[in-house]
Amino acid sequence: MSQSLPHVLNGVRVLDLTRALAGPSCTRMLAEMGAEVIKVESAPHGDMVRNASTFRNKRSLYYVQHNRGKKSLCVNLRDPRGMALVAGLVGQVDIVVENFKPGVMADMGLDYERLKALKSDVILCSISAMGQTGPLSHKPGYDYIAQAYAGITSMIGEPDEAPYIPGVGLGDVSTGVHAALGVLAALRHRDQTGEGQHLDVALLDVYYHYHEVNVHQPRATNGRLRPRPAGRHMTYACPAGVFQAAGGYVVIMAHLHHWRDLCKAIDRPDLVDHPDFQTDNLRLKRRDTVTRILEDWLQTFPDVPSAVAQLEKFGVPVAPVLSVVDTLDYPHLRQRGTVRTITDRLHGELDVPGFPIKFSGFPEELPLEAATLGQHNEEILTDYLGQTPEQVQELREAGVLVEDER
Amino acid sequence: MSQSLPHVLNGVRVLDLTRALAGPSCTRMLAEMGAEVIKVESAPHGDMVRNASTFRNKRSLYYVQHNRGKKSLCVNLRDPRGMALVAGLVGQVDIVVENFKPGVMADMGLDYERLKALKSDVILCSISAMGQTGPLSHKPGYDYIAQAYAGITSMIGEPDEAPYIPGVGLGDVSTGVHAALGVLAALRHRDQTGEGQHLDVALLDVYYHYHEVNVHQPRATNGRLRPRPAGRHMTYACPAGVFQAAGGYVVIMAHLHHWRDLCKAIDRPDLVDHPDFQTDNLRLKRRDTVTRILEDWLQTFPDVPSAVAQLEKFGVPVAPVLSVVDTLDYPHLRQRGTVRTITDRLHGELDVPGFPIKFSGFPEELPLEAATLGQHNEEILTDYLGQTPEQVQELREAGVLVEDER
Repeated sequence: MSQSLPHVLNGVRVLDLTRALAGPSCTRMLAEMGAEVIKVESAPHGDMVRNASTFRNKRSLYYVQHNRGKKSLCVNLRDPRGMALVAGLVGQVDIVVENFKPGVMADMGLDYERLKALKSDVILCSISAMGQTGPLSHKPGYDYIAQAYAGITSMIGEPDEAPYIPGVGLGDVSTGVHAALGVLAALRHRDQTGEGQHLDVALLDVYYHYHEVNVHQPRATNGRLRPRPAGRHMTYACPAGVFQAAGGYVVIMAHLHHWRDLCKAIDRPDLVDHPDFQTDNLRLKRRDTVTRILEDWLQTFPDVPSAVAQLEKFGVPVAPVLSVVDTLDYPHLRQRGTVRTITDRLHGELDVPGFPIKFSGFPEELPLEAATLGQHNEEILTDYLGQTPEQVQELREAGVLVEDER
Repeated sequence: MSQSLPHVLNGVRVLDLTRALAGPSCTRMLAEMGAEVIKVESAPHGDMVRNASTFRNKRSLYYVQHNRGKKSLCVNLRDPRGMALVAGLVGQVDIVVENFKPGVMADMGLDYERLKALKSDVILCSISAMGQTGPLSHKPGYDYIAQAYAGITSMIGEPDEAPYIPGVGLGDVSTGVHAALGVLAALRHRDQTGEGQHLDVALLDVYYHYHEVNVHQPRATNGRLRPRPAGRHMTYACPAGVFQAAGGYVVIMAHLHHWRDLCKAIDRPDLVDHPDFQTDNLRLKRRDTVTRILEDWLQTFPDVPSAVAQLEKFGVPVAPVLSVVDTLDYPHLRQRGTVRTITDRLHGELDVPGFPIKFSGFPEELPLEAATLGQHNEEILTDYLGQTPEQVQELREAGVLVEDER
């Protein structure tokens, strides 16, 4: 059996029945930490994202980014021989992760009770948009649908205008992270007690979990405080938000004691203790004036970096609003490995986000590769299920196993 | 020693040197899964958030929401006797979590090497805004600062206007989740090998990790594809985004094969195969027309729920954009426990987000309480450090230990 490179989750085995983004984010994180992940892809086409973000040699960078380090088993899930292979693998792993629409696993004969019959201490992690229970559990699994139900979308934009949607997979990726956390907690419990369990992780719950004050405010104030979107500035501190500079935007957080530093930085010591601007509450009442003073001053610099440098000199919390292209070669992000360049044998070099947890015991990220469709069919059937190469060939010829070179 | 209620992380012990939001989110998740968490609060005032979101009896709901289930030790960290207590506790735990500004732990004599001398297999998890390494590691720890550097802020709003900031603690809370994941992975590694390690988890890296396609696109297209904010609609699918209805907004995802269902729902079967609207690419070119057709139709309903019901009848992925207040009594969210009402002995009932991972083995969430400042001073010193009540009293009188009834 192929040996994983040393990392924290060596020895952990995962059967991965996920596709698209939330589920694959969970199993990718486990793979990047050294777990052995068998990704089951539905024949004949495999994960639906194998057609997304293809730029060279028909290779999907979407697939590469979210599935590095996983073995690919491409099998016909509508053929009983295919399902028998999947059932056989359940007995060989610690964890099963899936993100089908709720009910589909049961339809496939793979609900938790059946999995338990195959392996008594199995951990099943089910990922969905709205959860396995509740009247809306049937809803389709789109990130923005869960985001809207979670009250997150309503918190982005101007108070009395249509809200904005962030152009980034916030909910899907973070649901994968939550699922991975649940899986490791359940794994520890299994090791201590011999008991597996079924986890239910939903984008809705994950998004909702991000409300750090919004959820407790309305009832605590008898409805006086009704969370509304912040616009470009925080609602309870000032100045704190997005400001226009020459050629771009900056985030400045000069509330609380930072106000003093800001006044020094912009050479307006008269404002530090000015009765109109002394506190956040006073400044909130005059937010337009504060914003104007600050934006007029920002315009006296030729560009964003020079304005940021001046503010930093005085210890004012500030950041340039970087575009994604800006981030790719930004020294701090490169040096930390926040962004990294990896090589895919079919596409060549590509940039992807670094692994977001840095382990001192494993300072180098694992040099993982993304599999071609069904690349590990034979390895998995022979190593895990004790089949002979002849049996594998027979299943291949019967169309139960599928392989493709991309 | 007090016994935790049964849950997956029973027996895990955490020394919590965190404050505000990202760090406390990590240790709160561990506590909600049954770990024993000792929160060290700096005397005399404790966690800075004890003054935030206070509505009744000076009790901070911010503190309650993010610190339930933790024991509070309030100790003077500028007094060598106080630091000796903290050092003593390191020997009694599995994990230390901190979110001071990088360098502060070393200044306090508690860097990883020192912790290792106190407990050879300790796991230290350091949480910060920009990370422990790199030229910007000194930056102050505000969520929006890290968000701006990660290129996330630039993806929210209209392409050529100032971006918006979400009114929710996305980065802080999710960094806590990432940290908890890293901690459990490192704990498993320690159990297998006897080796601890130092984790470095940063808001910057966590935010960056959410770019599911933005980071690989520019280089793969030689700069042709430069990620820009989506506005209110997705940039590569149509119709997909936020639409105005009577009295509110809805998210509709009617791209791909959903277009057919949408046309039926709005009684425009002529559009299904219309040469101008057949594919996402064609519809993207005519997005304003598609949006107008859809919003005109939405206005024929008296309100958002009736329009949503009609779209659901035809299987169109749709969601009302719920305000946070709307979510509090929404049946699905209540039934699933996405939102829950808990009772705090000083404030009374309050609403908070549910725990975002549902465990079948532990269907009830733990009935945790938030501590008053220094509530567990005596318990911790006697149970963990073997001190006598007299010694505790002496430290109390010397101001090394502080207690307060809120």
